[in-house]
Amino acid sequence: MLAQRLIERKRDGGRVEPGEWRALAHAYAAGHVPDYQMAAFLMAAYLRGLDRGETSALTDAMLGSGSTLDLSHLSAARVDKHSTGGVGDKVSLVLAPLVASLGVVVPMMSGRGLGHTGGTLDKLEAIPGFRTDLTLDAARAQIDAVGCVLIGQTAEIAPADRKIYALRDATATVESIPLIAASIMSKKLAEGLTGLVLDVKRGSGAFLPELERDLELAETMIRLGADRGCPVVALVTAMDRPLGRACGNALEVEEAIAALKGEGPPDLMNVTYALGAEMLVLGGVAPTADAARRMMEVAISSGRAAEKFQRVIEAQGGNPGVVDDPAVLPQARACELFAAPRRGLVARVEPKAVGRGIIALGGGRTRMEDAVDPTVGFVITAKPGDWVEAGEPLATIFARDRAGVEVGQAALRTAIVIADEADPPLPLISHRVTERGVERYGD
Amino acid sequence: MLAQRLIERKRDGGRVEPGEWRALAHAYAAGHVPDYQMAAFLMAAYLRGLDRGETSALTDAMLGSGSTLDLSHLSAARVDKHSTGGVGDKVSLVLAPLVASLGVVVPMMSGRGLGHTGGTLDKLEAIPGFRTDLTLDAARAQIDAVGCVLIGQTAEIAPADRKIYALRDATATVESIPLIAASIMSKKLAEGLTGLVLDVKRGSGAFLPELERDLELAETMIRLGADRGCPVVALVTAMDRPLGRACGNALEVEEAIAALKGEGPPDLMNVTYALGAEMLVLGGVAPTADAARRMMEVAISSGRAAEKFQRVIEAQGGNPGVVDDPAVLPQARACELFAAPRRGLVARVEPKAVGRGIIALGGGRTRMEDAVDPTVGFVITAKPGDWVEAGEPLATIFARDRAGVEVGQAALRTAIVIADEADPPLPLISHRVTERGVERYGD
Repeated sequence: MLAQRLIERKRDGGRVEPGEWRALAHAYAAGHVPDYQMAAFLMAAYLRGLDRGETSALTDAMLGSGSTLDLSHLSAARVDKHSTGGVGDKVSLVLAPLVASLGVVVPMMSGRGLGHTGGTLDKLEAIPGFRTDLTLDAARAQIDAVGCVLIGQTAEIAPADRKIYALRDATATVESIPLIAASIMSKKLAEGLTGLVLDVKRGSGAFLPELERDLELAETMIRLGADRGCPVVALVTAMDRPLGRACGNALEVEEAIAALKGEGPPDLMNVTYALGAEMLVLGGVAPTADAARRMMEVAISSGRAAEKFQRVIEAQGGNPGVVDDPAVLPQARACELFAAPRRGLVARVEPKAVGRGIIALGGGRTRMEDAVDPTVGFVITAKPGDWVEAGEPLATIFARDRAGVEVGQAALRTAIVIADEADPPLPLISHRVTERGVERYGD
Repeated sequence: MLAQRLIERKRDGGRVEPGEWRALAHAYAAGHVPDYQMAAFLMAAYLRGLDRGETSALTDAMLGSGSTLDLSHLSAARVDKHSTGGVGDKVSLVLAPLVASLGVVVPMMSGRGLGHTGGTLDKLEAIPGFRTDLTLDAARAQIDAVGCVLIGQTAEIAPADRKIYALRDATATVESIPLIAASIMSKKLAEGLTGLVLDVKRGSGAFLPELERDLELAETMIRLGADRGCPVVALVTAMDRPLGRACGNALEVEEAIAALKGEGPPDLMNVTYALGAEMLVLGGVAPTADAARRMMEVAISSGRAAEKFQRVIEAQGGNPGVVDDPAVLPQARACELFAAPRRGLVARVEPKAVGRGIIALGGGRTRMEDAVDPTVGFVITAKPGDWVEAGEPLATIFARDRAGVEVGQAALRTAIVIADEADPPLPLISHRVTERGVERYGD
């Protein structure tokens, strides 16, 4: 009867009270509310919206449906980064060990790729032996020992969110700002953080392409964090083209390792440093963003950051040799260059088309139960704004076989648009959002 | 993938095309679309609405998901009546045999009671032995032999509607005019009708209390019928008080039998005659409503109408002796008068409170799987507008035991409101709606 009543109320634009959110989340997690009732409720919530208090109550309800990572015994700050997702976004793999090597604890819980976007867990699992399915106890032990852990949402963390998220994915109720914000924050707050940095992607390849909605999402999450004593800072970054050059799980691990050695592509390094600076300042380890950046450069040049990644890999059962020799990673059977079909300006490198190309190659998912091939993907060296000659190599295709190479060629012909003129791409980092409001980045 | 795409489209206010409605209805009926996806779709449809073409396509899709009653071999007209439901509404039990006794075939498919409203099937099953679960073949044979059959929606008729209706009931997506209209019309069109009369209830005890929405529903169904060569006429009748005096399954059968002998309460007779006149004119058996009414009076006074009911009962396995001796019906163990608690004007006899009282006595359902006790209920002789003295009997309570009598007393204390003055009740029959438009009844 509870579910029926709450569906009616939300359907008619009414308000669901905190105790009711709690009861609904618990009943659904326990299997007492059937999926079809929750699906109807979620569609009503999607279309009618949630007010600030409801978003907050839903966050608490999902957080309270499971366990949390109690890290209160640590004196060190615990700061995580969350990205709304994109193509070529391997920042977490660089950032987590880099920031952890500077004394801020990073208890990072990530997701898998779905649709055109990639996922950190899939990337990590490209490393032979790497396990992401740790229990909370094992994660806590690793944090004590290494200061960093890279895991998936365990069954113990926010089980109501886990179940609701899967249902939203199947019922076209994903792109709702209050539902997204509550889902992310219920998991992040379960990590026992003292601070959180958000990378909100904007542009054609982002989950929410419009800047206005990105800022709304950032502000909603910042408020949820602030109300619970967890300061949140958000940067809005470009996802109108892939980040870095590598797109595909093993290829991205290789690029992330290069970045940890100071050899990453400039856009990847800049986004990593910008997010890392926020984490180090939030964590109280650096007084300013400039100081933080210098600390990160030293951590990289000294080898400390790469070494931290090696220790994380080792602790999670992976082959740490990958950091010294990326050939340890599984390798694609077939690879081939992709050449510019004409002379002109690279107008666009469309992330969705690249992401769909990875799926077509077997390296992504359309359903959660799909297996992914870690070896396939693209390394795209061309960037929007580059001038190219006909026949000039713009990318390398990594596939399972000849047929895959053809699939990859077709995908890149769609993804990489060459024209005589083009609008400039979005600024790499455009806005910074804090509790005090929105500012243009760098101002 | 189809369901996901259609959920998204409807969620965003888009249009679902005829072929897509058909595919969705078939896939859902076949179990290829899970309940949770259909639930999200229905909530989106509820909140975003369906346009005229979509409502029409959904009707066809649900109709086409199953078999139909092919009655084209009959030269006689086939006309049914559908009511949107209320309390004390036993009109079908009187009307079907009455109209059939005058040469119009009545292939009537009815539903069960749910919530505060009663259902024709539950009433019929109060007659010992009466079976409502006939196959389409058995129904067709009975129509040939008797000219009238009173059954439930068989598994063969509109299975997509059957499944969708059950889901709507559990997901607060019932009160949507396009969804209601398509659901009713898909079943009615499956009866092979040449005409249909609608009794659209209005007022506090109706499914859609507001006149404006009642007229919209009537117009939607009239259009759906007209587009398919089945003329539909609707009367809007009062459901701000129970119809007739008896409320409860066996009690209503007894009152219906009295009505078939010309001894029904005036409001029940008037609604029956008004709906019957429309059926007889639509069926081409009477030239005018006045002529139809005279024919019905003769059918009743001559005993032909009651005799037709007897034949229907016999054909469906029931004890036909009930028509001559209502004591054949199961009888309540305990009964007691309900007296006016004060002197004054009967301001209201609230149908919802009466209906809930019947549920409390064990004679109604809150869930489809509940069993009903046919014996319990009320006979309420007081009508809004009556002047009553303190202690005057207003009703009789029929219950299983002493405790039930107390429950019934409490229900009637809530339902029957006595005051010093009161607004007049709604006109018994207020509007008549046809393809040509809406007119005040009697004008």
